[in-house]
Amino acid sequence: MPLHGKNLIGYDAVNAGSYTFSGINPNTQEELDTTFHEASDDEVNRAMALAADAFLTFRRLDAAKRADFIDRAADEILNLGDELIQRGMAETGLPEARLIGERGRTMGQLKMFATLIREGSWVDARIDQAIPDREPLPKPDTRLMLQAVGPVVVFGASNFPLAFSAAGGDTASALASGCPVVVKAHRSHPGTAELVGQAVQKAANDTGMPEGVFFLLHGRGRQVGNALVKHPATKAVGFTGSLAGGRALFDLASARPEPIPVYAEMGSLNPVFVLPGALAERGDAIAEGLLGSVTLGVGQFCTNPGLVLGIDGDDLTQFVNKSSDLFNEAMPATMLNAGICDAYQSGLQTLLGTEGVNVAGKSQTDADANKTEAAPHVFTTDVKTFMGQPDLSHEVFGPSTLVVNCGSKADLEAVARDLEGHLTATFHGTEADMTEHQDLISIVEEKVGRLIFNAFPTGVEVCSSMHHGGPYPATTDGRSTSVGTAAILRFARLVCYQGFPQNSLPPELQNANPRGILRLVDDVETRDAI
Amino acid sequence: MPLHGKNLIGYDAVNAGSYTFSGINPNTQEELDTTFHEASDDEVNRAMALAADAFLTFRRLDAAKRADFIDRAADEILNLGDELIQRGMAETGLPEARLIGERGRTMGQLKMFATLIREGSWVDARIDQAIPDREPLPKPDTRLMLQAVGPVVVFGASNFPLAFSAAGGDTASALASGCPVVVKAHRSHPGTAELVGQAVQKAANDTGMPEGVFFLLHGRGRQVGNALVKHPATKAVGFTGSLAGGRALFDLASARPEPIPVYAEMGSLNPVFVLPGALAERGDAIAEGLLGSVTLGVGQFCTNPGLVLGIDGDDLTQFVNKSSDLFNEAMPATMLNAGICDAYQSGLQTLLGTEGVNVAGKSQTDADANKTEAAPHVFTTDVKTFMGQPDLSHEVFGPSTLVVNCGSKADLEAVARDLEGHLTATFHGTEADMTEHQDLISIVEEKVGRLIFNAFPTGVEVCSSMHHGGPYPATTDGRSTSVGTAAILRFARLVCYQGFPQNSLPPELQNANPRGILRLVDDVETRDAI
Repeated sequence: MPLHGKNLIGYDAVNAGSYTFSGINPNTQEELDTTFHEASDDEVNRAMALAADAFLTFRRLDAAKRADFIDRAADEILNLGDELIQRGMAETGLPEARLIGERGRTMGQLKMFATLIREGSWVDARIDQAIPDREPLPKPDTRLMLQAVGPVVVFGASNFPLAFSAAGGDTASALASGCPVVVKAHRSHPGTAELVGQAVQKAANDTGMPEGVFFLLHGRGRQVGNALVKHPATKAVGFTGSLAGGRALFDLASARPEPIPVYAEMGSLNPVFVLPGALAERGDAIAEGLLGSVTLGVGQFCTNPGLVLGIDGDDLTQFVNKSSDLFNEAMPATMLNAGICDAYQSGLQTLLGTEGVNVAGKSQTDADANKTEAAPHVFTTDVKTFMGQPDLSHEVFGPSTLVVNCGSKADLEAVARDLEGHLTATFHGTEADMTEHQDLISIVEEKVGRLIFNAFPTGVEVCSSMHHGGPYPATTDGRSTSVGTAAILRFARLVCYQGFPQNSLPPELQNANPRGILRLVDDVETRDAI
Repeated sequence: MPLHGKNLIGYDAVNAGSYTFSGINPNTQEELDTTFHEASDDEVNRAMALAADAFLTFRRLDAAKRADFIDRAADEILNLGDELIQRGMAETGLPEARLIGERGRTMGQLKMFATLIREGSWVDARIDQAIPDREPLPKPDTRLMLQAVGPVVVFGASNFPLAFSAAGGDTASALASGCPVVVKAHRSHPGTAELVGQAVQKAANDTGMPEGVFFLLHGRGRQVGNALVKHPATKAVGFTGSLAGGRALFDLASARPEPIPVYAEMGSLNPVFVLPGALAERGDAIAEGLLGSVTLGVGQFCTNPGLVLGIDGDDLTQFVNKSSDLFNEAMPATMLNAGICDAYQSGLQTLLGTEGVNVAGKSQTDADANKTEAAPHVFTTDVKTFMGQPDLSHEVFGPSTLVVNCGSKADLEAVARDLEGHLTATFHGTEADMTEHQDLISIVEEKVGRLIFNAFPTGVEVCSSMHHGGPYPATTDGRSTSVGTAAILRFARLVCYQGFPQNSLPPELQNANPRGILRLVDDVETRDAI
């Protein structure tokens, strides 16, 4: 499809705003073709009004029709063909294989949610039948289910131009729940976003969705995003990005006359505990795995392991030496954009300037600033320095990690107790290590969303049992996940019907159970009709 | 048990604070015996530190042991005998039968959550087994479940001295989930709160709970509550009360370095739609039901119907006339405390002073200020006045309601579209009315938590399919309920384990399924072991 640089509003494409910008190739610093038009205030208001109108129809559509739309959106993204991949490469510097893989994941996410709502049990339907002769008072018939919350604003993420952007995880789960979605495209891949947005728009039109279920608005700075979050019709927000950005949106949403939930997934150090038995058995292999995980996608994953904790001893020394050798041999690579690259350099400078922190290894090839490159680094420090310097607990977004030498098991637990919230924590251990360090695991369990054994945190499986989230500051809502089928719960709320006539009830709650979903009827789970 | 007026911290009772106060009998204005000690800052900090310590142990206890504790707490509340009922009557002015009923409800809530966690499936366990030979990458084993979120602060509610106070709904669901609970007792029933708190403290001790699972702190104003909400160890807050109070806590919690969720249940008008067919069939009966619901508990229920909407015509006129007669005959009654009574009088003055609003009926007996009495009122107005005066959409907490004469079906829908969030909406209609007014129901569905057909909103059934909540400003979190088994979800968060050894997993996620709970294994729900 040809790029037009306009904002997608319903089945329209508009460009009334006066500010424009272009995509930039981080590999070459060149401006890419197509001028993108920042959405005007009027366009923001028009989008939100149309979304609010469409909500009433969209949320009550047969789930199968919403599922057809979502499936079709996945197919239309594939139909964009190589144009999408090439534009994505040009705008993000990410390699072809990664973007092809990410496209597959994006389509998989969409189809997973389509499958989820076709099956339908996600609404957690519960029915307690009337007991007219109960004493002292009759018990009324009550029926409960989850329903869509309303128009959702989704912020595209720079580091996942497909899987967490225009038709990414939050868009998929919100549409599945029955919420219209207004995407604020990320400024650093506007063309990629537009192509995907056009695919979703086409899918909506071709499957007969009401106009106003999907929108894609451009903006250079914070103005468009802020206006969307403040708009009264907006009922929830999904965001993936920096702590500063996520917190600003959370604060804005909390200060609204009607506060709304913000699901912001922000920074995380993803601590890796290398326990003694595992280090003795296979320290070199863990060092190799660590290098792979730290440098994957040039370290630009939310689950990038930025902190490694081990107990002092020969095996830890050998692990650090091996890591040094590996990082020395690693090559610089192009980051997503100049801002992210600058922030990485600045994070390195903080580490380099902290007394007690040493460079154990770093790419022996210099990073080329003209190619927006970052050089992999591994640092070391001791537990006292780490616990005394709060800066060391801040994420350095990029291919860098810090190994903390803890003097003892007690030190390890002290560091764990002091951790803020993170998305993940990883344990490399033998089963004996895990038994020996049960207390450590318990402490860490309270701080993270996902605990990993003998693997690495990068590579988030998309499935029903995944949780991608964690206590603040990893996210602004540690109860909720942005990956996996449970992500649909963030865009739903409970609605109860008391004493309603059968034909005024949603199908999920009718006696006949026409959807055949799993329900809790008088506290027994069943797919049977009543 | 003798009252001591101290703060309950773990298994201790302390009174280091310098401020004291007493309970007041609203029927007589007399100070009641026992001086209560406001918690000092040190006591707040000591409570939260102990709660944080206890959390690690408490959340990992066998669910059956937590259930035994919660069951025992219910029994110990009953063991308080008539002393609890008499103290409750003296502090709240509520009649004996109501308090005996509310005690039963409180015990029922506790036992319901004990049953829920004994069964155990509430944790929503999900397991996706590994697929080592999947291409291009192996699929890891991932397992997901809900876990307790951390220490919870619960504010006692003035209008439910038992069911939403020291051992009320939020306390029950938080303890069930595995969260230590710190109760801020309501200032207007400190003795009732202490008695219940002593019962819970005794139950915890007798069932061998770690010290620090339950606390009860007193305070006259906002200082103790604010300190609790701001404390870093606090992970969630439950509140039932005014919009101003709930919003203040929400703002405080959102502005913390680590924001935490506040589940505040606040004001609600609970609109009642009296549709034409029903008015024609049984307008008088609806008027009688309305009087009963408006005056139940002296109108001091969150679900009190403060707004009635009907379409102009003879049947609506007859309904208003009947309501006038009934309200004229109604008697004043004692409210919970002087502050609530003053606010009711002030709400009446606003209605009386609004042009276009008329008194249709009111108690012909004057309210006795010395007995903190409120007189039932029914007002009428037209749709133009109602929609033009935002004050008329604010709750008047007490036995008052406003009937809005809507000129037409279109007017009715316009008012519905303009509604803010409410806990409930009620439809009195024939099945033909419901078909005729499908659009109205759809509009209202987006604004409330519970929709009621041909009954009244007061009387919230405690069961699995209940939802007591609603969009802002009814609550600060419209996704969540404070009544029914689903209330446990507000104090839980997702935790995922990837590749974990069997004996390092919580029992709910082990292959053998030792708890016998319903799980989603490879996307199929089953109670079978793997």
